[in-house]
Amino acid sequence: MEDRVIVFDTTLRDGEQSPGATLNLPEKLEIARQLARLGVDVIEAGFAIASPGDYEAVSRIAADVGQLEHAPVIASLARCNKADIDRAWGAVQSARRNRIHTFLATSDIHLQHKLRISRNDCIEQVGEFVSYARSLCADVEFSPEDAGRSDPEFLYQVLSVAVAAGATTLNIPDTVGYRTPEEYGELIAGIIRNVSSIREKGVIVSVHCHDDLGLATANTLAGIRAGARQAEVTINGIGERAGNTSLEEVVMALRTRPQFYNGADTRIDATQLVRTSKMVSAMTSIVVQPNKAIVGANAFAHEAGIHQDGMLKNAATYEIMRPESVGWNSTNLVLGKHSGRAALSDRLKQMGYDLTREELDKAFQRFKELCDKKKVVTDADLEALLADQLERLNEVYQLDHINVTTGTGNTPVASVRLIDDKGEPREDAALGNGPINAICNCINRITRVDAKLSEFHVHAVTEGIDAIANVTVRIEMTAEDGRKYIFSGRSADTDTVVATGRAYLAAVNKGLSRGGRGQAVDAPRAATV
Amino acid sequence: MEDRVIVFDTTLRDGEQSPGATLNLPEKLEIARQLARLGVDVIEAGFAIASPGDYEAVSRIAADVGQLEHAPVIASLARCNKADIDRAWGAVQSARRNRIHTFLATSDIHLQHKLRISRNDCIEQVGEFVSYARSLCADVEFSPEDAGRSDPEFLYQVLSVAVAAGATTLNIPDTVGYRTPEEYGELIAGIIRNVSSIREKGVIVSVHCHDDLGLATANTLAGIRAGARQAEVTINGIGERAGNTSLEEVVMALRTRPQFYNGADTRIDATQLVRTSKMVSAMTSIVVQPNKAIVGANAFAHEAGIHQDGMLKNAATYEIMRPESVGWNSTNLVLGKHSGRAALSDRLKQMGYDLTREELDKAFQRFKELCDKKKVVTDADLEALLADQLERLNEVYQLDHINVTTGTGNTPVASVRLIDDKGEPREDAALGNGPINAICNCINRITRVDAKLSEFHVHAVTEGIDAIANVTVRIEMTAEDGRKYIFSGRSADTDTVVATGRAYLAAVNKGLSRGGRGQAVDAPRAATV
Repeated sequence: MEDRVIVFDTTLRDGEQSPGATLNLPEKLEIARQLARLGVDVIEAGFAIASPGDYEAVSRIAADVGQLEHAPVIASLARCNKADIDRAWGAVQSARRNRIHTFLATSDIHLQHKLRISRNDCIEQVGEFVSYARSLCADVEFSPEDAGRSDPEFLYQVLSVAVAAGATTLNIPDTVGYRTPEEYGELIAGIIRNVSSIREKGVIVSVHCHDDLGLATANTLAGIRAGARQAEVTINGIGERAGNTSLEEVVMALRTRPQFYNGADTRIDATQLVRTSKMVSAMTSIVVQPNKAIVGANAFAHEAGIHQDGMLKNAATYEIMRPESVGWNSTNLVLGKHSGRAALSDRLKQMGYDLTREELDKAFQRFKELCDKKKVVTDADLEALLADQLERLNEVYQLDHINVTTGTGNTPVASVRLIDDKGEPREDAALGNGPINAICNCINRITRVDAKLSEFHVHAVTEGIDAIANVTVRIEMTAEDGRKYIFSGRSADTDTVVATGRAYLAAVNKGLSRGGRGQAVDAPRAATV
Repeated sequence: MEDRVIVFDTTLRDGEQSPGATLNLPEKLEIARQLARLGVDVIEAGFAIASPGDYEAVSRIAADVGQLEHAPVIASLARCNKADIDRAWGAVQSARRNRIHTFLATSDIHLQHKLRISRNDCIEQVGEFVSYARSLCADVEFSPEDAGRSDPEFLYQVLSVAVAAGATTLNIPDTVGYRTPEEYGELIAGIIRNVSSIREKGVIVSVHCHDDLGLATANTLAGIRAGARQAEVTINGIGERAGNTSLEEVVMALRTRPQFYNGADTRIDATQLVRTSKMVSAMTSIVVQPNKAIVGANAFAHEAGIHQDGMLKNAATYEIMRPESVGWNSTNLVLGKHSGRAALSDRLKQMGYDLTREELDKAFQRFKELCDKKKVVTDADLEALLADQLERLNEVYQLDHINVTTGTGNTPVASVRLIDDKGEPREDAALGNGPINAICNCINRITRVDAKLSEFHVHAVTEGIDAIANVTVRIEMTAEDGRKYIFSGRSADTDTVVATGRAYLAAVNKGLSRGGRGQAVDAPRAATV
């Protein structure tokens, strides 16, 4: 058996379906570039037909990251119909290597309640549209949605049809995270045993698990033991509900226990794991808990200054991986006020940021401002600054000035001046029951938006008291259709109050530029795998 | 085979070993009470010999929660020596049902590098001290530390000796989180097969896993399938490094898949899971990521207003558990400014808080202050308020007044007035590169403490813009011995700036009351299981 496991990263598709995780185009591009650096084999860049924004993101990633020398395959999701497949192909076409990933549910509960079609209809659609996809693209993946709860005999039948129609990868999703490792391994083994064309045509079997019972990693590994050679995963395990399988856990389990997994391994550069995790966490505003395996802040906590008698005597007593092997404690080059534009540009290039001249100018200006407030500027600070800069594209309103006074015994007051899209200043003041509340009230008053802060998060972990604070907010806005939509915004600054004003305004700007319609609008998103 | 699985909760022992998670006595008591309400069978309340504070906490929990009508067993950890066992027994003695949990490493790497004893020494110590523990207490658990990496034949020998010496539970820790589910299941099966006295004497085999490769839940379930009937777990899976097995995942996997696990089940009241999770997260300052199974904010995100076509047609299309079954969306009784002392007292009792008259007075005063700032007060707000109140016991300095002015274009300034332990006011002002920094500088200046903010976290998720913000900080203080120690503090207020001042001061107070020595001082903590 081939011992290489293909890593199919779906952070930008299934991961982005996490509530409130909406990413903008520059953010998606940065993440895609980092995924390429990490060494993933396939990037599922989005669901092209879901919205014009999704289409544009997949197309841009295909034309950018998909053109690199050792570019990953760029894939788009598509339901089993012509319009979806055409749109997917249109979006991935410009990549050097591309894939159409089409899916149709095979469980009776989905066929009856969601799709309202018969088993025969299902088989027909799979045959027709896998074949159509294959007429466009040499690399076609088919997923029987909710395979974990499908009748195995029917599943074998559908999969045989898909292979006959030209599918080159068969992905087996446990869509609702219901299966145990023993069952899921048996499901994969059963498929390989019973669908003879898989072996005859060298079709890759793929695993796709969800973590509702905390078993996604174990299920994925059980599938690999049973012969699967592609794993669909996301960075930090983000995704709908309890999320998808964590890329980092699967990669490191295979590396740490090579004998147990018969040498099955990925091409991932594990030293990029921590950095990728931090980037995705910052851009999606989804925190990683400190006790998360591999990439949590405490995952190697012996290194964090906590005295451990056994550790001092021999690291192996409590350690099965070296933190350096996954990118902890990697060189953190420090810049400061004497660092020039060239030094910043070099460092950003080494960190993998590919900025235009204009973007670099902006970044340098903010870097200089930061140096006035903070003695040393680390890679983490630069990441925060860049993430913030990417966030603030396409602004309807720009923040010009903000001032807040608060404390015990006086009512918090904020004054804010914004510049609108015609360049006109608009300012006002407002009270609140706290400084954050006062800022939000004030921005609502100026922009005449009816937004509600539903989540507010500040996070700062750096070398000392003059840390940069990363602020993320989620707001709810009511659109014309009366439904509520969620937008997120974030910012980074040494001043929490200023960062909060920027983050809140970023979320409001997102809402305004989409006519108050956010995540909920994209109807095809209901299609999960 | 008996189908009940004993839940041994070690949140207060292995969980509390998470870096910076140090809990004070009232917090430990509140968590223990909630664990009893949740229905755990055994509470490992601490490691009695680790410090006087640990001893006191275990003793108080034994004398309080251990006296309830259907009290859980109260256990203390002890190394395999007389002093540890005596101390453990002294601490748990007053509980209606108690247990001594003693351990000794059995892997060659630990015997050689950490303990520096031979295999024969190991066997002798186990026989002698399990027998001694049994002479004090009818319920004795023995753990061969690092069993996951021990020679199986030697392990069987040690376990036979432990049973002969009177151990009633044998716990098999995969201390470093190295094993796969297949291996760990086989390890448990092998032990039950090869140590005949386990069946003869009806000894319970227990599983204890760590999540370094993301496999703790799968390993625990594999152990239960193989015949283990006790699971050692923590709330939210907290613990050293990547943490321990999550209580909530194991409980819900067994409940969701009863046929697969042959009816093996726990006595847990699952509707208490979310509340227990939130309490532990608030008190330990360890966040739960939104994509955490069962208790993460997005675990049932379909319910959070995100439109899902399939979901609307039939919940079962994407849902294998009902959110209500684990305590989401439970009645959130709303109080307001017209609610009196009796209403508050009733509600707090229903929520399980057992306050003294004096504590209730304080809580009512803060409740009234909160009603002035916030229209409705929910259970979540009350939890935050109570957690904050528990945090601020034994203060060296009290916060009397705080004022901050900040914004773009002016240097942030904070003025703070503290009351010292002699009742004298001490005040000063300081600048900073942000409002948080200014507050910390100002408190350092007044208290003359050399503390550094190493982590800063604000979290607010409530019904609207006038949310209560939960602030947690970690600080580093350098003690007389030149080593650095970590202290955490937290607070909750509608005003983030005020809450930050309180949280930072709480951490400084903790540091001062322990002479600047925190977590690192407790040398026996190096002993993990």
